[in-house]
Amino acid sequence: MKRIYLDHAASMPLDSRVLDFAKDYLTKAGNPSSLYEFGQEAKQTIEDARARVGKLINAESEKTILFTGSATESNNIAIRGTAFRNRNNGNHILASAIEHISVLNPIKELQKNGWNVEILPVDSYGTVDLDVLNKLISKKTMITSVMYGNNEIGTIEPIKKISKIVHEKGNYFHVDATAAAGRIPIDVQSDDIDLLTLSSNDLYGPRGAGALYIKPGVKIQSIMPGGGQERGLRSGTENIFAIAGMGKAAEIAKKEMSSESKRLKKIRDQLISEITKIKETRLTGHPTNRLPHHASFILKHIEGESILLSMDNYGIQIATGSACSSKTLEPSHVLLAIGLKHEEAHGSMVITLGQSNTNDQIERIVTAVKGTVTRLRNLSPLMK
Amino acid sequence: MKRIYLDHAASMPLDSRVLDFAKDYLTKAGNPSSLYEFGQEAKQTIEDARARVGKLINAESEKTILFTGSATESNNIAIRGTAFRNRNNGNHILASAIEHISVLNPIKELQKNGWNVEILPVDSYGTVDLDVLNKLISKKTMITSVMYGNNEIGTIEPIKKISKIVHEKGNYFHVDATAAAGRIPIDVQSDDIDLLTLSSNDLYGPRGAGALYIKPGVKIQSIMPGGGQERGLRSGTENIFAIAGMGKAAEIAKKEMSSESKRLKKIRDQLISEITKIKETRLTGHPTNRLPHHASFILKHIEGESILLSMDNYGIQIATGSACSSKTLEPSHVLLAIGLKHEEAHGSMVITLGQSNTNDQIERIVTAVKGTVTRLRNLSPLMK
Repeated sequence: MKRIYLDHAASMPLDSRVLDFAKDYLTKAGNPSSLYEFGQEAKQTIEDARARVGKLINAESEKTILFTGSATESNNIAIRGTAFRNRNNGNHILASAIEHISVLNPIKELQKNGWNVEILPVDSYGTVDLDVLNKLISKKTMITSVMYGNNEIGTIEPIKKISKIVHEKGNYFHVDATAAAGRIPIDVQSDDIDLLTLSSNDLYGPRGAGALYIKPGVKIQSIMPGGGQERGLRSGTENIFAIAGMGKAAEIAKKEMSSESKRLKKIRDQLISEITKIKETRLTGHPTNRLPHHASFILKHIEGESILLSMDNYGIQIATGSACSSKTLEPSHVLLAIGLKHEEAHGSMVITLGQSNTNDQIERIVTAVKGTVTRLRNLSPLMK
Repeated sequence: MKRIYLDHAASMPLDSRVLDFAKDYLTKAGNPSSLYEFGQEAKQTIEDARARVGKLINAESEKTILFTGSATESNNIAIRGTAFRNRNNGNHILASAIEHISVLNPIKELQKNGWNVEILPVDSYGTVDLDVLNKLISKKTMITSVMYGNNEIGTIEPIKKISKIVHEKGNYFHVDATAAAGRIPIDVQSDDIDLLTLSSNDLYGPRGAGALYIKPGVKIQSIMPGGGQERGLRSGTENIFAIAGMGKAAEIAKKEMSSESKRLKKIRDQLISEITKIKETRLTGHPTNRLPHHASFILKHIEGESILLSMDNYGIQIATGSACSSKTLEPSHVLLAIGLKHEEAHGSMVITLGQSNTNDQIERIVTAVKGTVTRLRNLSPLMK
């Protein structure tokens, strides 16, 4: 039985075209800081990758792209790198309640160190409340962080509207585009974004690379001092394979996004239609304004981990926002932020589609969900 | 003409056995935090790698090994992660003058934030002065950082003696073993080391992984908050390919180190013997107490960048501690620390051998050095 992988938000396979493109750098030695020919070639390879990543988000110049080790690191540099540098430029930080923990945890740490942190609430679809934003933001707001599209509930935020409010009253606007990039078009110039986080693996690129777009003029500093690579902002010998691969992955994403997202959206919409027909099952996140590869549900009266393990028995890998993502027994902060009660949030199932998913998998997926729901509800103490 | 690569301290090729071992994880999707079968398999792969890395340095348990993204990150966590956590446990930091900049720069940053930093001088061979250490260290010394073997001059430090002094009077002892691991035996237990930095690539493993040995009981905290991977100490989805590869590389290093180091030492000794026969040429670093693959020289009256480019024309890649490593016009801090004058330090040439180097390359290397020296000295304004 062939495995059906539906957890692309957690991890993506490497695109074979990316591997072909970058594989020489996987095995060869080469340090871009070296002056000899191969070092210089490696340096050029990194600059080419920078340009490719810049094009995916319509950056004004490849110089705005900083390569990091991961999206977690990009988020940390965006939040803490601006905080350390702009200590005297307002001590207020805003972030949405549904940000990734690699945004929320650095902010919590800053809060412990005297920063004034406020969390922006979202509505039941997960959309940031613009009125509250308008009320909370002020000249003292050093940075506001709202993600482009949410990895757990798929909702796309009104980035352009948020950006307008942020720049009327506050200072920097950071957008975590890890889940959205490569799925929907992103334009940092027309959206007027100051800092934007990207992940290589979420574009079918290699692990070990992330990027941070930094608008010219943004004051920011390194959070990990060392050899001063990446213009002093990210030290450590460059991972040329991962960087070159991320560049190629961005190029492919730019070219294929439109058709691929259309293809996946059709499969996704059919899955939503079939799965929400199951009794006491409903969609989470926004019904239309959502990432095209993303479907997320609450299957009432049953429990996320059991759903995951049962689906795994069917050869299908899905995710849950139940408890495992937080490594505690608490359900996902995203599901609580959209107003779900603990017992509802426990029945979370998240499907994120990708290249390997096809129309002819739909029936098997729906059958597996139906079988899972029936069996688990029969066993469930929650089902009275 | 086949390229001869002599810059293994800057970057190493990936061992093909490592690639074979880990390559499945390069292309497959998989998040070790996921509960389904593949996620659990990925998790086990990481634990196996942890055990392999632990064995290379005789760690008491695989639990002492923290995987990071690079040696730069390991050094940052070791220095800043202990500093943030032990603010009230003495505010004094000691580091040798020849530490890597990924140790020295985090320490300089702490100095700006009120820490009392003192730099341990070295003698003309690059060996830390134990009398000065004895004088400077006190109960207020939160951490002392001395590298195992130096990447630029090859000198091996008296780690056991330093450890004894540190633990009689001070607190933690951090050792950057990036250049030494896999070349000479390291035993964190008998050396009584609290924190030890390792790099995957310096073991012929993939880029994108480093490790930090943390002795049980050491108080340390994360420097990059997020998803809480690696027991909360290093957030970000694990780079399974790089981690599995680092584990395999460590296993191979443990098995082959003794014979391979013996083989390289013979080649190295012959290179030193031949190159120091050239007029006004001398070895830097300790003549005997040095890393077995390492040969470093001052070629008087000529300039490092020109040496590097000339050798590159001969198809031979070497390094220089002249100016390029610092990205400024200053020569390497290591060469200045061993007492060289600026004009002497400019003539630095560093050879670091590896798997691909063989006896029959010696003649070609020596001929190239001789040709380089003759031609550049004829051109040199420094040669009067």
